[in-house]
Parts: sequence; C-alpha cells; structure tokens
Amino acid sequence: MNFTMPERFGALTSEDIAGLTGLEQLQRIADGRLSAPPISRTFRYYLDSVAEGKAVFVGRPSEDFLNPLGTVHGGWAATLLDSALACAVHATLGIGESYTTLEFKVNCVRPILPDTGDLTCTGTIVHRGRTTATSEASLVDEAGKLFAHGTETCLIFPAR
Amino acid sequence: MNFTMPERFGALTSEDIAGLTGLEQLQRIADGRLSAPPISRTFRYYLDSVAEGKAVFVGRPSEDFLNPLGTVHGGWAATLLDSALACAVHATLGIGESYTTLEFKVNCVRPILPDTGDLTCTGTIVHRGRTTATSEASLVDEAGKLFAHGTETCLIFPAR
Amino acid sequence: MNFTMPERFGALTSEDIAGLTGLEQLQRIADGRLSAPPISRTFRYYLDSVAEGKAVFVGRPSEDFLNPLGTVHGGWAATLLDSALACAVHATLGIGESYTTLEFKVNCVRPILPDTGDLTCTGTIVHRGRTTATSEASLVDEAGKLFAHGTETCLIFPAR
Amino acid sequence: MNFTMPERFGALTSEDIAGLTGLEQLQRIADGRLSAPPISRTFRYYLDSVAEGKAVFVGRPSEDFLNPLGTVHGGWAATLLDSALACAVHATLGIGESYTTLEFKVNCVRPILPDTGDLTCTGTIVHRGRTTATSEASLVDEAGKLFAHGTETCLIFPAR
Repeated sequence: MNFTMPERFGALTSEDIAGLTGLEQLQRIADGRLSAPPISRTFRYYLDSVAEGKAVFVGRPSEDFLNPLGTVHGGWAATLLDSALACAVHATLGIGESYTTLEFKVNCVRPILPDTGDLTCTGTIVHRGRTTATSEASLVDEAGKLFAHGTETCLIFPAR
Repeated sequence: MNFTMPERFGALTSEDIAGLTGLEQLQRIADGRLSAPPISRTFRYYLDSVAEGKAVFVGRPSEDFLNPLGTVHGGWAATLLDSALACAVHATLGIGESYTTLEFKVNCVRPILPDTGDLTCTGTIVHRGRTTATSEASLVDEAGKLFAHGTETCLIFPAR
Repeated sequence: MNFTMPERFGALTSEDIAGLTGLEQLQRIADGRLSAPPISRTFRYYLDSVAEGKAVFVGRPSEDFLNPLGTVHGGWAATLLDSALACAVHATLGIGESYTTLEFKVNCVRPILPDTGDLTCTGTIVHRGRTTATSEASLVDEAGKLFAHGTETCLIFPAR
Repeated sequence: MNFTMPERFGALTSEDIAGLTGLEQLQRIADGRLSAPPISRTFRYYLDSVAEGKAVFVGRPSEDFLNPLGTVHGGWAATLLDSALACAVHATLGIGESYTTLEFKVNCVRPILPDTGDLTCTGTIVHRGRTTATSEASLVDEAGKLFAHGTETCLIFPAR
C-alpha cells in the first residue's frame, strides 16, 4: 500500500454529484476528479478504492491523535470505520437517492500506536433495503492484524 | 459557556499520574496542571469539568470536520462521545487501576453543521463493576438540543 | 410490585387499534382491555404501565430461561429491554403512525438467576424525530440494582 | 435442514464439563450426550453444529413469539443471535476457562413471521484475545435471505 493523501479537499456541491450514482460520486473522489472531504485531511486518511457496496479507506496514525493514555484515540478508529461503513451504503445509491447514518457501533480490539503504521479500513454492505441499509467494517494493518471493527445502520431517502 | 482551548498538549507520563486517582488525573487536565491530549487540539474540543463518574467536554465544529455531504463527520461526534464515555469511567479509577475501551455505540440524531456552535458532551457512569464498567453520554447544543448520544463498555485492570 | 400476568393473549387486529394513538393502544394492553402479546406469556413478563414516551414492564425469571452456564439467558433480558425500548417509541405514535425496530444494543452487567426475583424494565424515549426515534431502557430488581441496560433505534412511518 | 429438537434439557453441572474444552462441551450438547439448555426448549431452537470459533443454531418461529404488531418479537431473534454469538466464543475456550457476555447489538433487517419457516443462525469469532473476545452472527432462512445480524463482546476469565 502506497500511502497517498488527496490533493484537493472540500465538500461536494449539488452540481458535483448531479446525475451520478453514489458509486460514481465516490469513484470520482477516489481518483481525484472530485475533492476529498476536509475530515480526510484533518484525520489523515483517504478513500482508496470503491466498488458496488464496498469502500476501502487507508489511514496513517500519528501523535496528533493521541489520547491521555498515549494510544491513538478510539475516535480516530471510529472515524475511519464510520467512513467505510457509510460509504459502503453510499456505494449502493441510485441517482437521486441520499442517505444519513443513524447509528454505528465500534469494537476496539487492539491499541493503535503512533508507529502502528498504515491501516486499511474496508466497509461492506450487509443489508440493502428500500429505506434502510446496514454495513460492517474492519480496520487492519498491513499484516492483516485486526485493530477495530464495527457495524452501522443508515436511512435512505430521496435527495432534495 | 466560554469556549477556551487548553494551552499545553501531550500524552501523560507515568510520573504525571503516579499516586493519583483517575478523578485527580482528569481534574489536573481540566485545570491545566497536566497537558491535554493531542487529540483535543486536532479535533477542537476539551475537557471542561469532571466529577466522580462524570466528565463534561466542550467542542466547536468547523469546516475541518466536514464529510462529503457537507455536514460534520459522524466521527467527530463519536470522538467527543468516546471521550466523555471513557472519562466517566476514568473518573471512577482508584490509584493503581487502569482501563481500556472495549466498544461504544453512537446514535446520530441530528446533523451537525459548521455553524451549529459549541456542543457540550456529558458522560456518566451507568455500571461500575470490579473488572468492567459501562457509561452513557449525550451531545447537546447550548439550548439543550440533542445531536448524538451513545453508550460504552470498558475493561478495568491493574495498571502495570 | 405485585406480579400479575395478563389473562388474554394474542396479536392486535387493525380494528383493535383503529383511531387510537400508540399510547392509547398500550394503555389498553396494560389494563387488559386489549390482549397482551403471546411473547409476554412465553417469556413471563408483562406491560405494567405506560405514559407518553415511557413504558414499564415487569418480568419474573425462571428455570425455563436458563442457558448452559446455569444463568438466565441474555436473550430473556434482551426481550424485556427490546419490549421497553420499542414501546417507549410506540407510546409517542400519533393516530395512523406505525414503527419498526431497526437495531438495539444490550449491556448485561450482572448475571440473572432463577431466584433473582421480579425485575422491572423501564424504557424512555431519548429522541423523537419525524421518521426515526431512539430510546433507552434499564432492567433493575426491587432494590434498584441494575442487571442490564440498552438503547434502540426505530423507524417511524405511516400505517398502511 | 431437518428440524430436530433435543430430547433432554437442563443446565450443565461442573461434573458435566470437567476436563473438557469449550468446543468439546458444545459438541456434546449438539450430539445429545449433554442436556440442551432449558431456554432452547422455551424459545424453540437448538444447537445444530459447532466448530472451533463457530456455532450454528436452528430455530422455528411460532405464534408463541408474537409481539403486539403480529410479527415475531425482536427478542426471539436476539436470543438466537446471542446464543450463536456467545457459543462462537465458547467454542474457543481452553480447559479451565470460562466467559460471560458483556454486550451485544442486534440489527433487525426483515420482519419474521410465524410462517417464515426454519431459520439458521451462524456465529463466528472475530477477535480472540487473552481476556476479551468479539463475534458476529447472522440469521437467515433456507434460501439464504437475511433477517437479522449482530455482534457481541465477551469477557474471558479462569473458571472457578
């Protein structure tokens, strides 16, 4: 994995996404045709690849994310997991559909340290209904060791 | 609420916390005698006050935390909630006890925007056993409107 | 608390609930004018009282609910919690509204034994939006000792 | 799948499980050499097969599990899921190890009806640490359609 942060950051406009499926929107973020979200820069992670019902993020821990105990804050892992969980749903949206996250749960199974190295967070759709969807995600290092995992529930509705 | 970020940031050393209860450790972070954690600066929030089994954080959303949809990323709310949830447990630790977060769940009930204003996140202990503890937290604006809430499970063990 | 099982059991018909708010439906189950659900008999618990956004169930553990380890199965506590969590939302429904449970989380903080005695499970609404709602619930004994607690997310929609 | 309820029910004694690994204990329940737990009879489901870190249950919905809305209560699905989630962990225990469930989350993605037919609930270990473990499970019908899924956190400790 070659850690490569995006070059442009910013929220998407309605023109950016007009006429695109969710998958097409995310693919354009992944390949740099659309801006990456600001959170991506602040938390040092990015969308690496996307497919129907699947999204893969890569993040690099650092000293900036430490909690008082000297490990990376659970909120950093939660942010990567929520991104992967939500984008797995996003990557199932048809043109004119939008969504929001209702809830997610995060299991922290190993401490992440500033020198843990790059982590890959893969989210996958579990259930896609007409108005709700659920997904699951895991956060692993380059050797495949698991650091955190989670599940999410999203609400799907017509975009305004 | 007067939003006042800490002045010093860094993880705690074992000397910092030697001979202190969890509550005493957190009170010294809240009043500036000990460094605030680096995550606090990166995610723009801080520990405002602490009591036995209770911790109150204040955060200020900004454009830096936006997701692609133009709202504040659920991971930012999750980070504040995890801080309040974990510190509510931290604030019950005796001298020589340590803890880690096993899991937490976050419900996102309203979108947070860059101009939502300061949010207060209050965590409270629900169950304190000998080896495990659970807590709950909510994230509200200055008018008391609820934006997110969550619960957490922690493991308690002797510090090394 | 005087443990008193309902006398009639059965699912509600659309005539039973026509023209009633959710609160009115549940009050009629609680006072015996409408049948209690069959699950109530099978798992030995019942709806004791209900108010706007609040529902109180009482259950009595028994040998019938034991898991292989000789304690009451977590599924029994989950059933009472889900009932209280869902009915707290049910008790906010207007005429013509229906709902379904999307997810719930259960924390088991103490083992329940066949001789633990009657347990009270109180569910309370946390957030009531237009299309979603969240609630929290706790399961305590007569002395107020906590055995389990949980939170839930529901979807609200027009009844067919 | 040939639905076959166990013939003997009862909690295990310490003699029953002396000198057995968790997997061996569960295999003896599955093949009838040890009693099935009473909950299994009350909720009409049973342990069908077990392997290292994996447990498969089969359940048959009925009118006895209906909620007021006329669908099978979420607590019934939660009970099968908790069984599969917990036994996936149980099936990793060494001789002299015991465990307890700290929490689990259940997503209900489709309504279960009395005539839905037999459902298979498969639990799988996700993380096995020294003192904690996590697992995931799904509940599907004979065509593989998903009705519910969940995750769980367990605490592992030396048996007394």
